[in-house]
Amino acid sequence: MSLLVVMAPSAASSTRAHRRPADWLFVLPSVLPACPLSSWLSIRHARRRPQAMSDPNLIVDSDFGIDDATALLLALRVDPNPLKAVTVVSGNVPVSRGVRNCRYLIALADRESLGIEVYGGATAPLVPCQPPPSQWPGHGKDGFGDASDRLPEVSSTSLHLDPPDEHAANALVRLVNQRPGHYRIVALGPLTNIALAITLDPDFLSKVASIVIMGGCLFAQGNSNRTAEFNFHHDPEAAYIVFAASQRLSQQDDVQTPTGIPPAPKLTLVPWETTIRHGFAWSLFDRIQQVSPSTPLSRFIATVAAKYQDQCRYLYDDLVKIQNMTAALTDTPSPRSVANHHQEYIMMANSFTMCDAYAMLVALDESLVTESKAWNVQIELGGQMSRGMMALDWFSSSRQGSNNTVVVFGMDVSALEARFLRVFA
Amino acid sequence: MSLLVVMAPSAASSTRAHRRPADWLFVLPSVLPACPLSSWLSIRHARRRPQAMSDPNLIVDSDFGIDDATALLLALRVDPNPLKAVTVVSGNVPVSRGVRNCRYLIALADRESLGIEVYGGATAPLVPCQPPPSQWPGHGKDGFGDASDRLPEVSSTSLHLDPPDEHAANALVRLVNQRPGHYRIVALGPLTNIALAITLDPDFLSKVASIVIMGGCLFAQGNSNRTAEFNFHHDPEAAYIVFAASQRLSQQDDVQTPTGIPPAPKLTLVPWETTIRHGFAWSLFDRIQQVSPSTPLSRFIATVAAKYQDQCRYLYDDLVKIQNMTAALTDTPSPRSVANHHQEYIMMANSFTMCDAYAMLVALDESLVTESKAWNVQIELGGQMSRGMMALDWFSSSRQGSNNTVVVFGMDVSALEARFLRVFA
Amino acid sequence: MSLLVVMAPSAASSTRAHRRPADWLFVLPSVLPACPLSSWLSIRHARRRPQAMSDPNLIVDSDFGIDDATALLLALRVDPNPLKAVTVVSGNVPVSRGVRNCRYLIALADRESLGIEVYGGATAPLVPCQPPPSQWPGHGKDGFGDASDRLPEVSSTSLHLDPPDEHAANALVRLVNQRPGHYRIVALGPLTNIALAITLDPDFLSKVASIVIMGGCLFAQGNSNRTAEFNFHHDPEAAYIVFAASQRLSQQDDVQTPTGIPPAPKLTLVPWETTIRHGFAWSLFDRIQQVSPSTPLSRFIATVAAKYQDQCRYLYDDLVKIQNMTAALTDTPSPRSVANHHQEYIMMANSFTMCDAYAMLVALDESLVTESKAWNVQIELGGQMSRGMMALDWFSSSRQGSNNTVVVFGMDVSALEARFLRVFA
Amino acid sequence: MSLLVVMAPSAASSTRAHRRPADWLFVLPSVLPACPLSSWLSIRHARRRPQAMSDPNLIVDSDFGIDDATALLLALRVDPNPLKAVTVVSGNVPVSRGVRNCRYLIALADRESLGIEVYGGATAPLVPCQPPPSQWPGHGKDGFGDASDRLPEVSSTSLHLDPPDEHAANALVRLVNQRPGHYRIVALGPLTNIALAITLDPDFLSKVASIVIMGGCLFAQGNSNRTAEFNFHHDPEAAYIVFAASQRLSQQDDVQTPTGIPPAPKLTLVPWETTIRHGFAWSLFDRIQQVSPSTPLSRFIATVAAKYQDQCRYLYDDLVKIQNMTAALTDTPSPRSVANHHQEYIMMANSFTMCDAYAMLVALDESLVTESKAWNVQIELGGQMSRGMMALDWFSSSRQGSNNTVVVFGMDVSALEARFLRVFA
Repeated sequence: MSLLVVMAPSAASSTRAHRRPADWLFVLPSVLPACPLSSWLSIRHARRRPQAMSDPNLIVDSDFGIDDATALLLALRVDPNPLKAVTVVSGNVPVSRGVRNCRYLIALADRESLGIEVYGGATAPLVPCQPPPSQWPGHGKDGFGDASDRLPEVSSTSLHLDPPDEHAANALVRLVNQRPGHYRIVALGPLTNIALAITLDPDFLSKVASIVIMGGCLFAQGNSNRTAEFNFHHDPEAAYIVFAASQRLSQQDDVQTPTGIPPAPKLTLVPWETTIRHGFAWSLFDRIQQVSPSTPLSRFIATVAAKYQDQCRYLYDDLVKIQNMTAALTDTPSPRSVANHHQEYIMMANSFTMCDAYAMLVALDESLVTESKAWNVQIELGGQMSRGMMALDWFSSSRQGSNNTVVVFGMDVSALEARFLRVFA
Repeated sequence: MSLLVVMAPSAASSTRAHRRPADWLFVLPSVLPACPLSSWLSIRHARRRPQAMSDPNLIVDSDFGIDDATALLLALRVDPNPLKAVTVVSGNVPVSRGVRNCRYLIALADRESLGIEVYGGATAPLVPCQPPPSQWPGHGKDGFGDASDRLPEVSSTSLHLDPPDEHAANALVRLVNQRPGHYRIVALGPLTNIALAITLDPDFLSKVASIVIMGGCLFAQGNSNRTAEFNFHHDPEAAYIVFAASQRLSQQDDVQTPTGIPPAPKLTLVPWETTIRHGFAWSLFDRIQQVSPSTPLSRFIATVAAKYQDQCRYLYDDLVKIQNMTAALTDTPSPRSVANHHQEYIMMANSFTMCDAYAMLVALDESLVTESKAWNVQIELGGQMSRGMMALDWFSSSRQGSNNTVVVFGMDVSALEARFLRVFA
Repeated sequence: MSLLVVMAPSAASSTRAHRRPADWLFVLPSVLPACPLSSWLSIRHARRRPQAMSDPNLIVDSDFGIDDATALLLALRVDPNPLKAVTVVSGNVPVSRGVRNCRYLIALADRESLGIEVYGGATAPLVPCQPPPSQWPGHGKDGFGDASDRLPEVSSTSLHLDPPDEHAANALVRLVNQRPGHYRIVALGPLTNIALAITLDPDFLSKVASIVIMGGCLFAQGNSNRTAEFNFHHDPEAAYIVFAASQRLSQQDDVQTPTGIPPAPKLTLVPWETTIRHGFAWSLFDRIQQVSPSTPLSRFIATVAAKYQDQCRYLYDDLVKIQNMTAALTDTPSPRSVANHHQEYIMMANSFTMCDAYAMLVALDESLVTESKAWNVQIELGGQMSRGMMALDWFSSSRQGSNNTVVVFGMDVSALEARFLRVFA
Repeated sequence: MSLLVVMAPSAASSTRAHRRPADWLFVLPSVLPACPLSSWLSIRHARRRPQAMSDPNLIVDSDFGIDDATALLLALRVDPNPLKAVTVVSGNVPVSRGVRNCRYLIALADRESLGIEVYGGATAPLVPCQPPPSQWPGHGKDGFGDASDRLPEVSSTSLHLDPPDEHAANALVRLVNQRPGHYRIVALGPLTNIALAITLDPDFLSKVASIVIMGGCLFAQGNSNRTAEFNFHHDPEAAYIVFAASQRLSQQDDVQTPTGIPPAPKLTLVPWETTIRHGFAWSLFDRIQQVSPSTPLSRFIATVAAKYQDQCRYLYDDLVKIQNMTAALTDTPSPRSVANHHQEYIMMANSFTMCDAYAMLVALDESLVTESKAWNVQIELGGQMSRGMMALDWFSSSRQGSNNTVVVFGMDVSALEARFLRVFA
């Protein structure tokens, strides 16, 4: 509980700062009107009496790697439950596997009674890259770090049910048309389902409250090809379609608020470099095991994360090479260099980066964002090394395109860790 | 003189740190064996008795914008003079204009007696971009900020001489074949001449001591198109050819040093983002005018830089938008965000960024580099927004290509400013 | 009637020849099992008692330019009616306009009683070309040669009905899943709807009996950009998706016929160059007006085709330049040149090329094809001049890809003209 | 001699027709002012007293495959000798091998006394394709069909001399600047040397009398990748540079003839499809061996061509698949199909296609061209399947670019065969 005491004011002050924007550039969609701090306070007790919001408004689109799984668990344990539906897309694992993992996680979190809908979606990208992006080994073939046979057992009747016939993209279109402006989407995988929904209904985006996306590279420091992040590299055309739709929307003359201020972009982006610069400390996981060695969720995270952690360390090894260099410079500090930046970068990389969990936490509570900015974001479809790359118009050099995306640069890591700990420990 | 006292130990300690690399990754070519600190100490007195090195070994390849001009003046006032030749390439201004500007600068620096050779080179990129990159207005049409008619006059007989018939690329090939391993090149414009030299003589790079290049974007924060820097965007194929040649060289099995350690890459790169993060303070220019209001060089810099400064301020205006956001965060410092990075970024951007001058100063004294790393660098030729973009293999995701380039991340700005002040004030 | 007498044996013998393939390469899908010659014989009498096939199996996907309109009329006047549904796609005209034009044509052909379903589909390409392909002016803004106000009137109650909510792509998926192997599709516009159906249901193509496509260039003689045909250039990714799906299908090991012979590709392609080399004589239109000056269909064709004919003549003017050259060679015949080819080309170009009508006629009666071959066809997505280009593997140079498409090279123009005349005169 | 009697009038009448152009489109540069029919008449006697033209004006740029070798021999046996120099480029074989082969051929033709200059040029393309185009096996690794050890011996002192230091591109620049308007170039390999010459001297093309190029695909029927011909695919940027230079030249306002008629483009192109449609009959080679079984040139052609013929037959096998189809149609001739075209195509493909020999013969005697047209030609640099593809603006769809190239469509095969027989038999 002490954690919460520490956290609450922090979140509050962060929120305050955040709500005092200097000018119109400071735009962040209200991603969490329906999930206030009080919901978080009740997480611990949620296990006993899970309740659905009277009007659940959250849709999760996911390709069900490990960080997707933790992200879904974070949302499942919010009480009252905001989750309306989960739509599954091909990416870290195939769609059929993703549907099964999703059902397992709902059962693991003891939330089967809530009637959260699960839809299967696109089984492949619109136009696959050649060669296809290689899978990061951390997720395992099963999306559970190849530890499926060691997971906590759940008793469930629905585990092996087929998903409904309705395609995820059609379900998305139907839902947002039934309740325009109501649903918030958190997109944790390749954007194929979302792009299909936009293609089937060109007004789809205007009827969504917001979409929080995990994906893309800020600084062309690619984790899939040289310059692109996996989710966007896996289906570049889908990413292109989503950001282009937001650009069309933000350029429409009739999109005017009463104040004359342009509305916030529908898209909020948590990019790869932002997540890796905000990694969780390894000690967080030790702590989970100390506090709660035997709850289903703590056993789950301990089981699936072993492989993930190993792979994060490989990533870290890459970065140690930079550290060796900067270490050599410690006695000649260079205030105007990018050394500080890199030092900090490495420190953070030596940690556990649950990319999708950050996007989910930000979607559940916008006050965790400490730094963001609306930019024009576009997706490169061609090139030898840059297919799927995200390009910000940093210097407005091209002067093309409106601000179609709120890009998250900074998050309150302590608060993020506290939320994580609260659910898993 | 006090400046020098401050500077000398700093440079020394920096050099020491620099020479204590932790491992083989810490590679920096010896770009300045022939230009020790003693040369800098004599700069002030250089005006009276300019002397050529017995064996001048520096070749400058330039497209003669304003920062090129200051860079050349910095080299011209080193005594004994290390400059063997200047090769001119199309870029900021046409070649014929560049040749004239070069001759003017040699006369302005009172160095006509030294017999520095000036060659005209490529009048256009190998394969021009469509549409061609727009020119940054700071250089003016004449490369002197449109202030040609207000420049200090020089008396010179050679000012309007035609350059020799020999093409710059052929001159480069001839020179490095006459003295393999002797010449260091500083490339300040598009790489067309260097690429032609490599194409005409595939062993060109192995016969060069080193090439310091100003160009390319570290973080895809393009100043020409959305992701590319002007020099590389102006002639992407040329940049491709140069970095590909260095990659071939670094992959050759027979390139082995006695110690078994791979040799340093021939290329040292000072990228755009590094320069803009190390801008000179505006006060530096006030100081030049205070100390030396009427010397030819101080009058020159005051005259040509007016337009350049204006345009730097426009650039700064772009960045103020970020500052507004980060200012809102000042009372909730977020240690694990990229906010610090941006704050620093903006502070530096509100300054005078003489990109080419930095590359020249680094070439003249490697100890000014405080942070660098050998990476694999490649140039993107395709794409809608990424033609001419430089891509580092940050995470070795592609695992293709050796370390073909030493990338400069940090420089000692105080020392850089001191060197600048010493020549111009 | 004499026309028919002449035609029937011709068609028969052609069919016979066609059914005597020399080897497995000679593959043509049975595109017309359900539309035998007897149907054509009854066309004249169809007006009086339109009847639906007990099991209509034809779906037309169209962007409703003028040639689409004539193609649909050709299908509408077959009796018993084979048309199950029409799906509309953006291309020559917007979808809403296309739906209205479709309803008008059904009424004009006096076939409202048949209950043919009309679905609206994709309102834009998946990833639009930049700049978008220019519209050929022949269709007019209304798809009726800008002659909407001069068309024959129809009395219809359904003319301004909204189409059903179901998206064309979903309707396609639903229909083929209800009757796998039953439906034949004729695709006359950009392939957006078909590509969406394939993306929504990866097995879509295997459940379709066949798809006849009008689109693509055989010889890179583009009518939209330099190398691409309009339908494919308007939505290159859609075309890519369709041909890639056929390639996957033809590569599946389990796709084996009892004879060990690979099954015919699902796709039959009528490319641009094939249509322009098989143009209808201008006299055909004079004849329609002579024979039947006042029937609704002859008045329709006379009204809408005026602009189309004009534009065909512009096209012909382009080709006259070639004729001038070849005319100069008439007294020195060169048997082994490509002159003959061009002479023939020009002769045909001086005519009325109803591209989509050919595809429809071929779909209604495969025996009209006199020459075809199964090839591997792929769509280029990149390039400066070749985005949307179709590339055949003429020399199997890449040795990649199976034969995914039957390409139509030759058609029996006399028979095509006879069918056309029969419906419109 | 009887051959010549037959040939001469044919050539004459062809020439006559050719000189009666109907309009300005009919443009062919005067590629052979200095090589009239009388030169050909004296070929037989040339062996005894080889003489150089007082002013030799022909430069051959070649990558020395087998057809290059035959092309060079054709030029070497013209008397008086028009050959000024040979420049060697990387392509079918490496440059050093090409230089050696060139010297061997000069000796074989007994023309060492003429002082023809041989220069080594570019050893690699400007920007190599990835993966590099595969070599057609017909040339062998040595450019002599892997038959180097069975070739007729020559006695020569110069065979193993190093080429001069001057790079081929510099030699080209020097020569055309010494005699502007004098030299005609025949380019038989990748265009790297020519592109370098243009880059080194932007006015190079205006100082050349003409360039006849073998390369490029008319109909995207690629022999290297799916759509591109080997010479252009091997160095796409070089081809781009050459055609772009011709476009610049033809667009200059001041390029006006006294008559107001635009001058002929400097470039004449003999594309891949034109050569394969004009193959020599296999019997030609039997005839050579019958007439002259033991002369050095007949022995040479018999030795080197074995592998080449084999590979041509493989090519033919590819085409037989088409024949099977068209054979099935023989009893239902389809006058308006492209079947005729294909039938003819196959007939010709079943033959010996000495691509470079045709370009050389056309350069030596323009009257062998029976059909040609000035077009705008551009080279595609991007794309997945179209890098290096040549694109004609067939329908002026882009309306960009002037007529920068005379494209050869038809040649007098009988005359070509007669010329070939005359030299080799």
